[in-house]
Amino acid sequence: MASTPNQKEMTGNQNSWDSLLPDIPKGPLSRYRKKASFNWKEMAVFIDTEDIIQLKNRIFSALENDPLFAHHPGEDLCREKYQELTFLRFKRLFEYNFLTQQEVFAGPVMSASKRFAHILEQTYNMEIFGCFALTELSHGTNTKGIRTTATFDPSTQEFVINTPDFEAAKFWVGNMGKHATHAVLYAQLYTPDGKCQGIHSFIVQIRDTKTLLPMPGVMVGDIGKKLGQNGLDNGFAMFHNVRIPKENLLNTAADVTAEGKYSSSIKDVKERFSAAVGSLSTGRIMITGFSVTNLKLAVAIAIRFSAARRQFGPTEDEEIPVLEYQTQQWRLLPYLAAAYVLDYFSKSLFQNFVEFFAGVLTKQKSQRQADLGREIHALSAASKPLASWTAQQAAQECREACGGHGYLAMNRLGEIRNDNDPNCTYEGDNNVLLQQTSNYLMTWMNCIRDKAPFESPLGTINFLQDYHHILGWKFTAISVEDCMDSSVPLAAYKWLVCYLLRESDLKMKKEKQAGRSNFEAKNNCQVYFCRSLAVAFIEQAALQRYHDHTHDPSVPAALQPVLRSLSALYGLWSLSKHLAVLYQGGYASGEQPGKLIQDAILELCCRLKDDAVALVDVFAPPDFILNSAIGKANGELYKNMWGEILQGNKALNRPSWWAEFCINKPVIGRLRSRL
Amino acid sequence: MASTPNQKEMTGNQNSWDSLLPDIPKGPLSRYRKKASFNWKEMAVFIDTEDIIQLKNRIFSALENDPLFAHHPGEDLCREKYQELTFLRFKRLFEYNFLTQQEVFAGPVMSASKRFAHILEQTYNMEIFGCFALTELSHGTNTKGIRTTATFDPSTQEFVINTPDFEAAKFWVGNMGKHATHAVLYAQLYTPDGKCQGIHSFIVQIRDTKTLLPMPGVMVGDIGKKLGQNGLDNGFAMFHNVRIPKENLLNTAADVTAEGKYSSSIKDVKERFSAAVGSLSTGRIMITGFSVTNLKLAVAIAIRFSAARRQFGPTEDEEIPVLEYQTQQWRLLPYLAAAYVLDYFSKSLFQNFVEFFAGVLTKQKSQRQADLGREIHALSAASKPLASWTAQQAAQECREACGGHGYLAMNRLGEIRNDNDPNCTYEGDNNVLLQQTSNYLMTWMNCIRDKAPFESPLGTINFLQDYHHILGWKFTAISVEDCMDSSVPLAAYKWLVCYLLRESDLKMKKEKQAGRSNFEAKNNCQVYFCRSLAVAFIEQAALQRYHDHTHDPSVPAALQPVLRSLSALYGLWSLSKHLAVLYQGGYASGEQPGKLIQDAILELCCRLKDDAVALVDVFAPPDFILNSAIGKANGELYKNMWGEILQGNKALNRPSWWAEFCINKPVIGRLRSRL
Repeated sequence: MASTPNQKEMTGNQNSWDSLLPDIPKGPLSRYRKKASFNWKEMAVFIDTEDIIQLKNRIFSALENDPLFAHHPGEDLCREKYQELTFLRFKRLFEYNFLTQQEVFAGPVMSASKRFAHILEQTYNMEIFGCFALTELSHGTNTKGIRTTATFDPSTQEFVINTPDFEAAKFWVGNMGKHATHAVLYAQLYTPDGKCQGIHSFIVQIRDTKTLLPMPGVMVGDIGKKLGQNGLDNGFAMFHNVRIPKENLLNTAADVTAEGKYSSSIKDVKERFSAAVGSLSTGRIMITGFSVTNLKLAVAIAIRFSAARRQFGPTEDEEIPVLEYQTQQWRLLPYLAAAYVLDYFSKSLFQNFVEFFAGVLTKQKSQRQADLGREIHALSAASKPLASWTAQQAAQECREACGGHGYLAMNRLGEIRNDNDPNCTYEGDNNVLLQQTSNYLMTWMNCIRDKAPFESPLGTINFLQDYHHILGWKFTAISVEDCMDSSVPLAAYKWLVCYLLRESDLKMKKEKQAGRSNFEAKNNCQVYFCRSLAVAFIEQAALQRYHDHTHDPSVPAALQPVLRSLSALYGLWSLSKHLAVLYQGGYASGEQPGKLIQDAILELCCRLKDDAVALVDVFAPPDFILNSAIGKANGELYKNMWGEILQGNKALNRPSWWAEFCINKPVIGRLRSRL
Repeated sequence: MASTPNQKEMTGNQNSWDSLLPDIPKGPLSRYRKKASFNWKEMAVFIDTEDIIQLKNRIFSALENDPLFAHHPGEDLCREKYQELTFLRFKRLFEYNFLTQQEVFAGPVMSASKRFAHILEQTYNMEIFGCFALTELSHGTNTKGIRTTATFDPSTQEFVINTPDFEAAKFWVGNMGKHATHAVLYAQLYTPDGKCQGIHSFIVQIRDTKTLLPMPGVMVGDIGKKLGQNGLDNGFAMFHNVRIPKENLLNTAADVTAEGKYSSSIKDVKERFSAAVGSLSTGRIMITGFSVTNLKLAVAIAIRFSAARRQFGPTEDEEIPVLEYQTQQWRLLPYLAAAYVLDYFSKSLFQNFVEFFAGVLTKQKSQRQADLGREIHALSAASKPLASWTAQQAAQECREACGGHGYLAMNRLGEIRNDNDPNCTYEGDNNVLLQQTSNYLMTWMNCIRDKAPFESPLGTINFLQDYHHILGWKFTAISVEDCMDSSVPLAAYKWLVCYLLRESDLKMKKEKQAGRSNFEAKNNCQVYFCRSLAVAFIEQAALQRYHDHTHDPSVPAALQPVLRSLSALYGLWSLSKHLAVLYQGGYASGEQPGKLIQDAILELCCRLKDDAVALVDVFAPPDFILNSAIGKANGELYKNMWGEILQGNKALNRPSWWAEFCINKPVIGRLRSRL
């Protein structure tokens, strides 16, 4: 007879994963943990692998045991102190060196660029401290429009860096506000003949490494307080004829001769620009991952709160956990499903990127390598919007779902929301980035029209080969049970992408026929067309991967049902936001499809609610790292809160202005004559 | 020949409103202001009236001229200092006494309750300082479940106040953390026979008025940092057998005799509870107004930014304001329309409430007064969710639409978002509150079924009389031009409310037929049914009022076109979120309705974009009050930002830890052995 997961857990160490992860203390959440359909440790090992869990354990426990990383409940750290603490912590991470050079990816990267090996060496030793200076005060999204100049002076073999006016100040540069000594600076390169050769990057020293005082001709400073991420020092810099050696031109694809003649291995200016900012796509994949982390943190806090918090009940005497309410399930469980789906998507995309980057390092020039680059660019340009917006909305919903207590700083949902916000903006505004993805998809229309065969290295667009056929599909599920598998939303998504592709293409033609310029036509095709297309495509891509993953025979049998439910819930819930388009385009008609999708979402929420706490245990970091009173694993939310509140800075003291308050009463209307 | 608005403005003081409002300085936004279809001062006077504008001018200018209200750009105020400053500013407002007693509504309120006139007098003189202590740590939404007790002791003629355990601590109480000396405390009243008589309110002194030290038996303190609103001190309190005189029982509808016998003019416990918390509905109307203010601030900042910020353009040399992009218009202009519609709705609801409250004060016992109370309760229970969520989403969209600069604290969008957040939660969680509205709507189903005539005092549900007829309506517009009037979305909304009412009723019946208890059945009817019903109803109610308002012949002819466009845009945009239901229920079918609605939204955005800056000038407060560098009226966003940045706390200084940074380099891997 098969033993249940919980029996297994009680019989001790028969599985390697039992000792790998700590047991969770009994408490108000045990009620749910006992009902879980799977063993959370088995799931954790399946998702993360033993190696990663051990690495995480090592890092988390080192941080917890180091007073430098201690929390100070109730303390009100000013921004300056917070920045100093961040610096000290960052330094300490170097001392731990959790991943040695041999263990990381950085090794090959560093060796790849021999020309600047000394710079990288100094950076690694923290002798110098770098920053990446691309955006300017008046140019963020349109980086091509930056106006800082680097003019070559053959008489001294130097470039002269200049900021034409204060609107062209480098701005928002991370680490530049307080710390950076050197900048990778992007500027318009001018040759002595007065010709602008486009954007290139240069290494420019901005502060003295011994004193941290600005270098002559550099005005550098802090841009001020932000909504979040205030441990990071974002800065600005202006350059007044700052001279740097010719060798500091970073772009290996271009150079200037001693006489000032420009040469580039890439002829086209546009192409040169793409090559210069190519390194940016790395960032979008990283941000996808950061966003998923925020999503997981927010969901972990809100689910544990909801399982412990009781409010109202069937009788006057009995209150039930708010997680029992359908509304609360519907508000939170789709984000739990999103955390699983997007976590997998983010990791698999990173794997794709590693493959691609290996090709870059080995200087692969194949068509496949180029196609892979384009495909990954299209995927990452939409995965960042998808993940960052999902995390944003989840943080907001979780904040609200925890009521007033969600509004207390100690419970951390505000910090998560504030710290996640830049993910929607930096390395490309989400709405603007989505255009990259729709542009990529639109390029396949010619093949589609010609009925020529085509495929992409990762296969994410291969289904478009069946475009004409797919456009004839209809919604065919006839029962809620039919919809319990993600194949139902997946089929709908394939149709949706094809439909939006057709509509976007038609709209573009119409705009052009109406005499609009390329620029205008493209702008007028975004809302309801290209933008929706890119969103639908990336949701479909994430769902397709998770569907395949959860239907793979290698998934342990005990985990398959819950993982498939998560896949179906994410698929249906995401799809439901496009329901109007499904009707509009004729994929769905009549009351049934909409009702089935809604009923299926609620049914899946109901099926998943008893697993929700265990599903969160799988990915929630230790309490010390999660750092949320209501999110602690023990579920003792009120005890945990009191522990923090009473540590608060003078929580029980009367205010220092008590005498002013008690004695100096205002004379009502005393100043009315001033009005 | 009729002169254009701008000509009028230039020819000087012929209109009284010319001198009432200051002229706006020329600058980058003039381009839009010149193109506006109306005179912004005429609009401001039409919306606010001269009296209100003069009052606002008086208040704003007093604040701007008073150093106590000065801004300190770049200063990082700790929470304690911020609370002290808030106290001092609050005190100063008493000294200005902007509205004298004769001018306000408070006069009659104060005189109404003679029994506690001395308390009110002391409060007004700031001799005592009150707070409202209802919610507890473990009971927020379910206030009926609070567990603080007030037991009558006939031997001393006192009530004994007690907190049974720390979960029953009063929590989240505004002003309680640092300042309040007295609380209006809600507790379960126990008579000497051991019987619980339900919730009643009592006046309890919690701090000494001379020293601000806690009274014996009271443990009172600050609950800690919040995501926003940190000027306000929210507190907690626990009571250990605190004795108060019998007379401190506040509830005028109930009393206890000297012997401890309970008597109440309201017999039913449930009804007594309603009477006790009846005063809460005032709050929801106020919060609707606060939310609209946040909405207006956020929109003002983002529109002015978008009109001044240039990025990309049709040619390499020319960049255009981001407001010219269709996507940016579509992101922001619907919120501009929402600001106009909801501002009007909020004010008109307040008028309704004044009428109702006059009835309360004059002890009206008519059926109309009771019906009016129920109707206003239903409206305010949904207007708060509508306004607070709209402001929340607007603040987020505006933050993102301003890119990185929207993430800088100096531009204030973060503060607006953080300060608005509690509006979604306090005085009733939005999702829970919506049930009050759907419950109210469901009560009319009997009349509808019986085809009995019915109407409500404000007429907001009168259209339900045509329920059966309306359910047969279809979407009939056949051109974008048809959709330029809000009558199109309004008709769709009427159908939508009737359809969702029918579906909610059917769902409820099905749940009950399946044997579910009332409690369970109600919970299972929220998602996609009652919740959607309440949302659709309140959007419809707001739109109906604005439609009627903008179609009233008394609207100045010059203002009518733009106001009607705002009404149509808000209606269609809100409606578009329900588009799937319109299809599902058969109101819409085929591609056309969806496309027409989408095209109409984009067309209205395009028509409104040249008016957007002027529309914002109408409601934006003076720069000093708006307090956003990118939101200033002059549109000189970069100059304004530099002005703030360089005021920043040590913006140009090297960090105090520079020596540690430069000299004490980390030894890589030094602590690796600790792992």
